[in-house]
Amino acid sequence: MFATDKVSYPGDVLSFGHIREEKMIYVTINKPDISLKKRACDKMDMKTKPPGSLGRIEELAVQMCLIQNTLSPRATKKGHLVFAADHGVCVEGVSAFPAEVTSQMVLNFLSGGAAINILCNVNNVALAIVDMGVNSDFENAAGLVRKSVRKGTRNFAIEAAMTEKEALQALQYGGDAYEELKKKMGGEMQVLGVGEMGIGNTTSASAVIAAATGCSAEEVTGRGTGVDDEGFKRKREVIDAAIKLHQPDKNNGIDILCNVGGYEIAGMAGAALAAAADGTAVVLDGVISTAAGLIAWLINSDISAYLISAHKSVEPGQVAALDLLGIQPLLDLNMRLGEGTGAVLAMNLVESACAIMCEMASFKGAGITNRK
Amino acid sequence: MFATDKVSYPGDVLSFGHIREEKMIYVTINKPDISLKKRACDKMDMKTKPPGSLGRIEELAVQMCLIQNTLSPRATKKGHLVFAADHGVCVEGVSAFPAEVTSQMVLNFLSGGAAINILCNVNNVALAIVDMGVNSDFENAAGLVRKSVRKGTRNFAIEAAMTEKEALQALQYGGDAYEELKKKMGGEMQVLGVGEMGIGNTTSASAVIAAATGCSAEEVTGRGTGVDDEGFKRKREVIDAAIKLHQPDKNNGIDILCNVGGYEIAGMAGAALAAAADGTAVVLDGVISTAAGLIAWLINSDISAYLISAHKSVEPGQVAALDLLGIQPLLDLNMRLGEGTGAVLAMNLVESACAIMCEMASFKGAGITNRK
Repeated sequence: MFATDKVSYPGDVLSFGHIREEKMIYVTINKPDISLKKRACDKMDMKTKPPGSLGRIEELAVQMCLIQNTLSPRATKKGHLVFAADHGVCVEGVSAFPAEVTSQMVLNFLSGGAAINILCNVNNVALAIVDMGVNSDFENAAGLVRKSVRKGTRNFAIEAAMTEKEALQALQYGGDAYEELKKKMGGEMQVLGVGEMGIGNTTSASAVIAAATGCSAEEVTGRGTGVDDEGFKRKREVIDAAIKLHQPDKNNGIDILCNVGGYEIAGMAGAALAAAADGTAVVLDGVISTAAGLIAWLINSDISAYLISAHKSVEPGQVAALDLLGIQPLLDLNMRLGEGTGAVLAMNLVESACAIMCEMASFKGAGITNRK
Repeated sequence: MFATDKVSYPGDVLSFGHIREEKMIYVTINKPDISLKKRACDKMDMKTKPPGSLGRIEELAVQMCLIQNTLSPRATKKGHLVFAADHGVCVEGVSAFPAEVTSQMVLNFLSGGAAINILCNVNNVALAIVDMGVNSDFENAAGLVRKSVRKGTRNFAIEAAMTEKEALQALQYGGDAYEELKKKMGGEMQVLGVGEMGIGNTTSASAVIAAATGCSAEEVTGRGTGVDDEGFKRKREVIDAAIKLHQPDKNNGIDILCNVGGYEIAGMAGAALAAAADGTAVVLDGVISTAAGLIAWLINSDISAYLISAHKSVEPGQVAALDLLGIQPLLDLNMRLGEGTGAVLAMNLVESACAIMCEMASFKGAGITNRK
């Protein structure tokens, strides 16, 4: 999936070499055929409705045409990956919940009781839960996709969150998780949602966004799961101090991941890259998956044509990240849960948009008089 | 369904008497049991997520508890009614499309080619098309629900759009259409969407909203299906002049309907009242169905607890109407098609919200540590 100029995947991640220095991670993502855009817009404008009257649904339909390189796109095969990992930075007291909730929530996902399970059921989305680096052995955890890199990142307040080897491993695992879910879905996936669970991960995501955008912690940090005033202050201080300490290269996604990232963020970035390389649309959720989208975009900016932002998160960092990606959220429902809950809700819009493009009659076909 | 103090439905609509003068239309809508609200919120707060983190989905779930008077609401039985009618005011040149498009679009609905058909299919929503007053005999129109009051309203630029008898008939027909669709669905409907088709009906809807809110035409009028500058100017002039001519009573929904309404607007209002009286949630679409919601609310303000606004329309009048109703739209997708397209998309959120309330695990049940 991912390749350097030296070695093609599959291979030992060590073969990637000094990627940070040489920016040598290669993922080939097809650039959309821009000539198709006009034809897709024309097809949409001939539908039995005033031009543009379906608003963003029309834009989505055209984007899906470009992603799938067809005038008849489909989004009925929907998959969703929840990547879970723990964060060393939690010891700084940045979250409202204790770190053990990450592993507890993974078990909740596996037993079907979490919000993401319910929403995937309602919306007919295939779901897989991926352990990217939770601080647990998960001895009895049937169904868990095991891709653990390490039992949690290091505390980025004092050292780099992960090594380069770990970052590349996590990216690769994310891509593998995409391939495995697709296989489980019968070899076909048209839309991938990416979500996460990881106590402390809004701190990591905000730091990633601060690093990539040059914004201060104050501009990009929210309360996550609901940290109190004191914790909120600490969270912002930790992020500002970490950026100052590590000085991540704002143009290098791997470097940012290593310094202040998380394994689940890397997993989402890897899955997004793999999906886009495979011609699958990627639906980002809230601030954390948008931070992962940013990492993926820094690795290969061709991914932007494949990205859909599901919803406007309550977290302020998401806006800065979306501005850089040049995409706008579909929904604005005051959500801030994560797991990909917003992504799964937005998939319904993507599916609906594709159906409109494929099935709706044209003025000519239906014998309807067009505008005066 | 509807009753006056003299006569209970079913009965000749004439039996309603002088409703405009005596405000004697009675529809009994149960007020929600407010004590249930705290229990519903408590149940939601015990779910395995930070409190409030599902934002408006949580509010929707609580509203559905109140509507269905249960802590386990459901929204899997979804129905949608498209009411169609023609408008005498079209002769004033207020629309971008010729009036015959109304009947052509009805045939398009019946053959399954319109946007609303596609969206109902994708979202598993039962659909019925109701002729409330289209200027056509529809000789070969299998599946059409025939409730035509008259082949289009009168031109409200010069006379009242409809008689009181017609307004009451149309309200009643709307209620009947709800009952018939529910019967077709096996006797169970949990959510009703209301949508419309009627060339010229944003002019009528804007006039209804201007009448009910006291706003000027400039404040509440948009371009509808895309009228040009000259037509847009004419549209606003026609509305202002009609309000001046008819002086509708801003507190009397029937009076407003008679003067500047439309048969499909009356049909939607009647269906909404019937649904709410039956304990069914009502999803309003854009500006026209929101105008209908306003008429229903003027007839019986208890309906407000049952109303859900699907999406923010591009039409400015909707905001004024929603302000009066005290509800906020869920989606904002730059849509302005009508038919109930936004309503059907939003039903997925309602269904998802109910599933969250019913199926998601609690912290205690899942053995998850709550906040520090």
